[in-house]
Amino acid sequence: MRSVSIVGIGQSPVGELWNRSARQIAYDAISAAMADAGVDNADALYVGNMLSGSLIDQEHLATLVADACGLRGIDAAKIEAACASGAAALRVGIMAVASGFHDVVIVAGLEKMTDTVGKDTTAGLATAADAETEALHGVSFVGLNALIMQRYMYEYKVPLDAFAGFSINAHRNGANNPNAMFQSPITLDTYVRAPVIATPINMMDSSPVCDGAAALVLVPTEHAHRYTTGHHRGAVQILASAAATDSIAVHDRRDPLFLQAAETSSRKAMAQAGVGHEAIDFFELHDAFTIMAALSLEACGFARRGEGWRHAYEDAIGPTGQLPLSTMGGLKSRGHPVGATGVYQIVESVLQLTGGAGANQVPGARIGMAQNIGGSGATILTHILGV
Amino acid sequence: MRSVSIVGIGQSPVGELWNRSARQIAYDAISAAMADAGVDNADALYVGNMLSGSLIDQEHLATLVADACGLRGIDAAKIEAACASGAAALRVGIMAVASGFHDVVIVAGLEKMTDTVGKDTTAGLATAADAETEALHGVSFVGLNALIMQRYMYEYKVPLDAFAGFSINAHRNGANNPNAMFQSPITLDTYVRAPVIATPINMMDSSPVCDGAAALVLVPTEHAHRYTTGHHRGAVQILASAAATDSIAVHDRRDPLFLQAAETSSRKAMAQAGVGHEAIDFFELHDAFTIMAALSLEACGFARRGEGWRHAYEDAIGPTGQLPLSTMGGLKSRGHPVGATGVYQIVESVLQLTGGAGANQVPGARIGMAQNIGGSGATILTHILGV
Repeated sequence: MRSVSIVGIGQSPVGELWNRSARQIAYDAISAAMADAGVDNADALYVGNMLSGSLIDQEHLATLVADACGLRGIDAAKIEAACASGAAALRVGIMAVASGFHDVVIVAGLEKMTDTVGKDTTAGLATAADAETEALHGVSFVGLNALIMQRYMYEYKVPLDAFAGFSINAHRNGANNPNAMFQSPITLDTYVRAPVIATPINMMDSSPVCDGAAALVLVPTEHAHRYTTGHHRGAVQILASAAATDSIAVHDRRDPLFLQAAETSSRKAMAQAGVGHEAIDFFELHDAFTIMAALSLEACGFARRGEGWRHAYEDAIGPTGQLPLSTMGGLKSRGHPVGATGVYQIVESVLQLTGGAGANQVPGARIGMAQNIGGSGATILTHILGV
Repeated sequence: MRSVSIVGIGQSPVGELWNRSARQIAYDAISAAMADAGVDNADALYVGNMLSGSLIDQEHLATLVADACGLRGIDAAKIEAACASGAAALRVGIMAVASGFHDVVIVAGLEKMTDTVGKDTTAGLATAADAETEALHGVSFVGLNALIMQRYMYEYKVPLDAFAGFSINAHRNGANNPNAMFQSPITLDTYVRAPVIATPINMMDSSPVCDGAAALVLVPTEHAHRYTTGHHRGAVQILASAAATDSIAVHDRRDPLFLQAAETSSRKAMAQAGVGHEAIDFFELHDAFTIMAALSLEACGFARRGEGWRHAYEDAIGPTGQLPLSTMGGLKSRGHPVGATGVYQIVESVLQLTGGAGANQVPGARIGMAQNIGGSGATILTHILGV
């Protein structure tokens, strides 16, 4: 199996991109990644996307995007795993290069959630839940996360504002990210006064509905020097790729407060990379809701059960903290264009590992971990990158 | 790169399965394939599916199906490439095994198109076309194929009933397939009297809307003997996997009557397998419409341009003909549950190559080719299997 490296990255701004259609947003990210890698063609394109069928009446998405990017003819497929579609596409891209099927692969994440015509975005997001045993009964996706958060607060006797630190950190980092949807810091007061969406989740606990695309160029590590010689940025090696699943329906879990798939995939990833927790210089986690940040820290072994929120409380998660999180704003502030998020996390990790994170740079970062969660914990992929 | 073999197959009947939900249909196929291979677990599940977001409000489909099949925890992703989703999922499964990522992989194709609530299946199928430049203007997917067929008839001065042979052959073969949706032979008279759907496509030119699932178990060829020793069926090796794309919009093609992606992918596949046309014992082609059968034969080099229809006319395509096509009924008679079709083609190829095709057995079949087409020719995958 060949080792795989990233030699190019690209991203569109995240936001309500009403003047750009899905293929145009994808073009923005992919053409930037190709220019960054110095390539004008590729063997394959894998597009992580969740909602193009539900929201923009467009399946067959990867072939469409390939053609729009001047890549007509190449191998192309869309990969879907709810909000983990981006990382799932990356994983397919890694397999394509590792197997020797392809030498130059583009992985993109793409989602167009706003400015849709006659579509219900909340209903679209609920397709990440179990249609027959959850969504059919009217529970929304934020509602499911609210049930989990409520249970967490009850079980561990956690106060309502305990999760504020995750949101404050995300917004502080997003303020320095020119591609973030929200570039304004918030305070504890902002958090406490935020309107409630689904008790106890408030507006500052929740990531936004938005559009965006991000892209990567993957090559075999043994070829990486061809693309990075004389280039401002070195290659970043993929040290580990691991995936695990759980029941989609929250009520079917053995323990709704434990992300079993995060535990499994992070444990496998660390074993593949041959590193322990102490080696991880930053963690791009899936803070779609603040409760998911806490549960992710606990399942991955960075915090004891019931204590994930304390990390944010004690402000250990900034770029110079003990375990920097969401270093470019995370899902909360950079935004969460669902199928694209997993690829944004990798683009941002590459920036950190190559000294390109500007004011949010984690000093001396050499190993980063990214975790992308589909549904309320049913599909979880963990990648570890290094230089 | 490891060679990959198929050691288990399973399929649900194809039809209007109103008493089975999507996950139940998938369970039927996957549990049969697992029993056939003698495995009770797997490392990963890749599900080819096109329309679950549009028609049954269910994304996150692969994780849902994994859990429903007792495979909770394993790596899972849905692969989408319009009507070529099944073969695209197979290709990802092959890469997963070839790379060494996984040792036992299940590939399933799944589609639930009937008995949906408040959904428009014709609009769903049109998401395989370009939403902004084709579907927006009201053209349906059958309409696009009708334009191509009309042009073909005009350009090559082909009579209206020239395509009947493809349909007659499919129905004759489907009559012997207990899983086929239509198990009744038809005559030329049936074809000529069939109601027109979109001029010149009539009911007998067109594959039906239906439900179904098919599944495969893939392992490294070097492990195949573990699963087939003492088993009634030997392993079938995947000799080639190739994919190519084109513009989705028919008006963007250099030549709307030539399937460039079929030419490219079949040429690459034959080179990978090291075989020529004469070595192909049967061809499971993508006869979603009879015009696509003719165009596929021409692009793959089995017929000269403008003469693909003559193969059917001269009855060379039956199980004992020169190039048997659609040997278990094809998309027309077995049925076309869109995201599942590419996997049905492989299941049926395995039956042929292991002597399990019953009355439709191609005598002495040792090498078979399967081709799955997404959209009206925009994504085309060709696989070659052998024993």
